[in-house]
Amino acid sequence: MAGLDRRPPMAHTRAVDTRALRWLDPPDGPAVVLLDQTRLPAEEEYLLCRDVAALDQAIRRLVVRGAPLLGLAGAYGVALAAYRGDDVATAAGALGRSRPTAVNLSWGAARALAAYRAARDAEPGDTAPGRRRAAAAALAQARAIEAADAAASAAIAGHGLGLVGDRCRILTHCNTGALVSAGEGTAFAIILAAHRAGRVARLWVDETRPLLQGARLTAYEAGRAGIPHAVLADSAAASLMAAGEVDLVLTGADRIAADGSVANKVGTYGLAVLAHHHGVPFVVAAPVSTVDFAAAGGRDIKVEHRPDDEVTSFAGTAVAPPGSAAHNPAFDVTPPELVTALVTEHGIARPVNAGTLHDLGTRRGPLEGASTEISVER
Amino acid sequence: MAGLDRRPPMAHTRAVDTRALRWLDPPDGPAVVLLDQTRLPAEEEYLLCRDVAALDQAIRRLVVRGAPLLGLAGAYGVALAAYRGDDVATAAGALGRSRPTAVNLSWGAARALAAYRAARDAEPGDTAPGRRRAAAAALAQARAIEAADAAASAAIAGHGLGLVGDRCRILTHCNTGALVSAGEGTAFAIILAAHRAGRVARLWVDETRPLLQGARLTAYEAGRAGIPHAVLADSAAASLMAAGEVDLVLTGADRIAADGSVANKVGTYGLAVLAHHHGVPFVVAAPVSTVDFAAAGGRDIKVEHRPDDEVTSFAGTAVAPPGSAAHNPAFDVTPPELVTALVTEHGIARPVNAGTLHDLGTRRGPLEGASTEISVER
Repeated sequence: MAGLDRRPPMAHTRAVDTRALRWLDPPDGPAVVLLDQTRLPAEEEYLLCRDVAALDQAIRRLVVRGAPLLGLAGAYGVALAAYRGDDVATAAGALGRSRPTAVNLSWGAARALAAYRAARDAEPGDTAPGRRRAAAAALAQARAIEAADAAASAAIAGHGLGLVGDRCRILTHCNTGALVSAGEGTAFAIILAAHRAGRVARLWVDETRPLLQGARLTAYEAGRAGIPHAVLADSAAASLMAAGEVDLVLTGADRIAADGSVANKVGTYGLAVLAHHHGVPFVVAAPVSTVDFAAAGGRDIKVEHRPDDEVTSFAGTAVAPPGSAAHNPAFDVTPPELVTALVTEHGIARPVNAGTLHDLGTRRGPLEGASTEISVER
Repeated sequence: MAGLDRRPPMAHTRAVDTRALRWLDPPDGPAVVLLDQTRLPAEEEYLLCRDVAALDQAIRRLVVRGAPLLGLAGAYGVALAAYRGDDVATAAGALGRSRPTAVNLSWGAARALAAYRAARDAEPGDTAPGRRRAAAAALAQARAIEAADAAASAAIAGHGLGLVGDRCRILTHCNTGALVSAGEGTAFAIILAAHRAGRVARLWVDETRPLLQGARLTAYEAGRAGIPHAVLADSAAASLMAAGEVDLVLTGADRIAADGSVANKVGTYGLAVLAHHHGVPFVVAAPVSTVDFAAAGGRDIKVEHRPDDEVTSFAGTAVAPPGSAAHNPAFDVTPPELVTALVTEHGIARPVNAGTLHDLGTRRGPLEGASTEISVER
């Protein structure tokens, strides 16, 4: 199929569907359409990715980002390769390496690859109809992940709401809403639920350097939802806590080790230390797919280091002198003892440790029939 | 005199003298010439301020900044008013209010005003020669403050060097070098001395949001001095400490209360908490003029809040959605129990408390004949 399609593998369009990621069927597809998050909030533009190389590049450039959404990107990317007739295992491997810290990416790709292989194995020989059915199976798996993610988001919001008191002043870091999810997100889904319940007195939005996902994206989502909010330099969070102006710190996670160590956007660990120092609860919200049970602890999580110019320049303008080196880790790791609670779609782990995470991991998800009202308290 | 001078009160020039602030005598003056720090490192431009209104505006815009240099700005501003024949007490009052947290500003203005008044009181009547002699006395006082600041900087470097071990990895915040001082600065003067002694393995430069004084100015000074350094997002400091990559945190101060509470650039307090959590020494360097003995504790220090757009936009480009509110304190306050040591030109206070600060405050400065080798250890 690839040889017949002369359209460019990547192109910007303006569409009306504001979903952060969606699948485009033939004849306009097969393609994965991404809301270009690097251009928000100034522009709402969409990027069409017609092959895995284009999608891989978009993931690296952070056009699409956020743990749950990267799970979808991995799965739909594998479906895209399958529909194009590209090598599906190679595609899954490449997508799994696009961002080294985000476990959901390889998780989603592996799930779609397994569905593809199961369909192939179910029929004899290598026929065109067999390949089409296998591609359809990969796509169905991606759609199932998308539906499960939307349900997980709702379940996370339901569980997390119980942790938010009245007139709560919540501080959040990075961006964890509908832009990272097929639903309303992770931490931001809880904030939205709390806002609807009339409990959010103020949302403090860390700007989240270097790429300003807080100022650009979370402020955008908070503004659209009507949540009273203010953006602050990340370094201003400490004195807010000292002044008693923060009741709860709530973030997402990019990867969680089996012992409960949380890798998330750089700055999260500092917030956890500060919250601990000031006696403020520090709560993480993430789907169970974010837990990497193959990583025993924080040391087993590889932290992505990104290019210097994310720090030394801004929107193409140099801010540091020419030739200045930068230290630019995209993530940091928070040890479980600093995490008050982990909210997942299967319930809440509190305290956060290998035992409570194991229990959550072995529970069934809401789409698979288990109650969403289970809470793990060890 | 003001009526005769038709030149604009404020104008940019390109000069060759790289001092951050200098006095310009007639006939080109009287004027205060400022290196425009808002344009560094891209451009080295100078701003001529021919009256106190122009100087006040430059101070508010942060063309000139940093505690010791603001002391000079206050004193030279009063001399400028005196030479112009403007009301000197009004000028001193206005300059004292330009930046509410920086105590050195009103301290420098008050010193020059006192010198002016003493000279006026020494002669009978209100004569033109008498006013000229009083203006000269104010200018002489400003020059004395400048000389004392250069000497204090050298003394701070000498005292502080003893706190820097071999192969030291130092983390600093904001900008504390020659751009804020008539000498080599405060914290940065210690870093320079340690670098010359071969003790600096690496300087970690917090970019220092929102105005990026670290990325723009400290990286510029470190690069010129040949110090191995890397710029980082402020929020990346926490994981550097957790990784054991920071041996010493070293900052300046904008105002220090009598009990040792340190007001400094926003983010300093968070670093102090993090340093404490990780067992890293947290050292502050400042001249004794930074101590405000009239402020009993941290609660008595007024923290300046600056305009929202410093956070919500960057170099004229909006980063947050239109209408987003910001929380933008310029400073925060670190309690003395988190400060390992305070290095001044009169010696080192360790621990930092009302007693050790009182002892430093009653010592004579190096220009006044006392030894610079005194250390206060209570």
